[in-house]
Amino acid sequence: MVETLTVSAAAATAAAVDILTARDVPPADAEIVARNLVAADIRGIDTHGLFCLPEYAGSVADRRIDPMPEIIVTRRLPWAIAVDGGNGLGPLVAEKAMDAVLETVETQGIAMAAVKGSNHYGAAGVYIERAVEKGCIALASANAIAMTAPFGAKARFLGTNPLAAVVPAGKYPPFALDMATSDGALRKVRKALAEGREIPRGWATDADGAPTTDPAAAIAGMLLPFGGAKGSGLAFLLDILTGCLSGGLFSIDVRNNFTNHDRASGNGHFFLAFRIDAFLDPADFARRMEEEIDRLHALPPAAGFDAVRYPGERMARTAAGRAAGGIPYARPLVDELVALGGGAMLD
Amino acid sequence: MVETLTVSAAAATAAAVDILTARDVPPADAEIVARNLVAADIRGIDTHGLFCLPEYAGSVADRRIDPMPEIIVTRRLPWAIAVDGGNGLGPLVAEKAMDAVLETVETQGIAMAAVKGSNHYGAAGVYIERAVEKGCIALASANAIAMTAPFGAKARFLGTNPLAAVVPAGKYPPFALDMATSDGALRKVRKALAEGREIPRGWATDADGAPTTDPAAAIAGMLLPFGGAKGSGLAFLLDILTGCLSGGLFSIDVRNNFTNHDRASGNGHFFLAFRIDAFLDPADFARRMEEEIDRLHALPPAAGFDAVRYPGERMARTAAGRAAGGIPYARPLVDELVALGGGAMLD
Repeated sequence: MVETLTVSAAAATAAAVDILTARDVPPADAEIVARNLVAADIRGIDTHGLFCLPEYAGSVADRRIDPMPEIIVTRRLPWAIAVDGGNGLGPLVAEKAMDAVLETVETQGIAMAAVKGSNHYGAAGVYIERAVEKGCIALASANAIAMTAPFGAKARFLGTNPLAAVVPAGKYPPFALDMATSDGALRKVRKALAEGREIPRGWATDADGAPTTDPAAAIAGMLLPFGGAKGSGLAFLLDILTGCLSGGLFSIDVRNNFTNHDRASGNGHFFLAFRIDAFLDPADFARRMEEEIDRLHALPPAAGFDAVRYPGERMARTAAGRAAGGIPYARPLVDELVALGGGAMLD
Repeated sequence: MVETLTVSAAAATAAAVDILTARDVPPADAEIVARNLVAADIRGIDTHGLFCLPEYAGSVADRRIDPMPEIIVTRRLPWAIAVDGGNGLGPLVAEKAMDAVLETVETQGIAMAAVKGSNHYGAAGVYIERAVEKGCIALASANAIAMTAPFGAKARFLGTNPLAAVVPAGKYPPFALDMATSDGALRKVRKALAEGREIPRGWATDADGAPTTDPAAAIAGMLLPFGGAKGSGLAFLLDILTGCLSGGLFSIDVRNNFTNHDRASGNGHFFLAFRIDAFLDPADFARRMEEEIDRLHALPPAAGFDAVRYPGERMARTAAGRAAGGIPYARPLVDELVALGGGAMLD
């Protein structure tokens, strides 16, 4: 068991801001990055929150990520938002892209953003959650360093390319899917390695294609797509939307700042949001979602489950608890962040 | 081994038209339904082609499906197409919805259709393939009778809700994903039952939640989502898009005409298409897709594979072969279609 220290979201955010501003990220931008990483931690996605910050901060310090990127937004059509992230921090680029998407849905009802020249952005689902307040359904994805073998191959080709979706659900917490299309997320493998744990069987093979539960062998080898050919096809589609369509890097050309110190990583993102009232009255939709969820909750649980839950339900409970009572951070991560200048973690 | 009879696409289509027009489907509409079902057969999706026609024809004959539906298309916003299929044949409703989508992308660059009041439409991927000629990326889904247990539940709740996607790929056949979000498709279970075969382990449980390879027990029991919680979340999202958003039926309220003779099945569909040139020049995109595919093809195959292929690649080969050399239909299906008035199968 790893020792944890409970830190308020405010203190964690302040620490992250301090770490980033000390490396020349402007305060307003640092606040965006910090808020989105801590948002992942609040939601219980511990692998995609401040756990990512040491890498981000190091990359900014070395100028492998531009602390003051020129983020260029262009449009060929009113709903089609092309973003060049200028090798800025992923959470900053992603939030700016979603700003454009959510501004655009006001007038167009729908907006799509294809983003290139970005970096790892943490948890995909965090960026689209704002769409709920705008009465929108939204999707997000990203490509990432090639760690996953496509179905039928014995080599890394695709990132762990997440698919995230959010849907307002009336009186219930939003439906919120946020899943890697690899069977396990790379950050979860990294976290297992950092904490000296094995990874579940089925997540990965070693470099020779043999199944492994050793996180180090998995990182040297390859992850497997979830659900075989189907998950592999979905991961490939997401690389097309985030990489081929964005005009950025795709498949084996994408890097990360952990292992690559030579050039920009070149991650691509994809966002889509559209207004529910383009199809039906939001109140009607809310009632339909509540009915859908009530039906799901009424199902008999399978062996080993105490209740049937929908994606986002458990996360909402975690978020409410952590917003009120603080976020449990692993002690080694707290120490690392404090050493980087995030003494506010201990406030 | 089931005996097969090779039938040209033209003869199969003519037979299907004859079967449908004899049951009061107008010839132009019958041609649309026939063409889309045979298109599935041409592509090798044998479970979703004329294999569906006896059920469709019987439903039309009994007026459980309206042979002359009033299909109503309305829009609150230019890109947002709401379709009420009027309990028409699924392939007819789906093609009309995609007609509206592809007409709309000409002016808007993007279009989404949410369809209610339809029926089973065969193979989702067939309807969006035309988007390739329009320089579009397109997605399709549908809901269906509840056969799949969501993750953590021991009861049928979701349909086998397919996800289909098509992406132009330059000189290569389009990327074309078309997958049930259940581990196996219901039609594949039905086909196994019809042919006296077992189904693969992992596809289904019996009514008590125990794994089964007996297709009859699976139909009495439940299918499982592909990829566990992830596939389950995706299937749920697709029910939201096809059922909750369309204003139609969702989850356990959807029926099919096989087992339900009491009321309209109420299937919903979802289509999205957008023009690639909204983001970058199609020639540039084509080069990027060719590069993506070239890279994939260069990967070492995993044990048991002779090559690494992308979704749609094998289907394109099958389609080319069957378009030229005819479609192998199982003899019992041919006999059944001939008995229904499809003597043209034997031409």
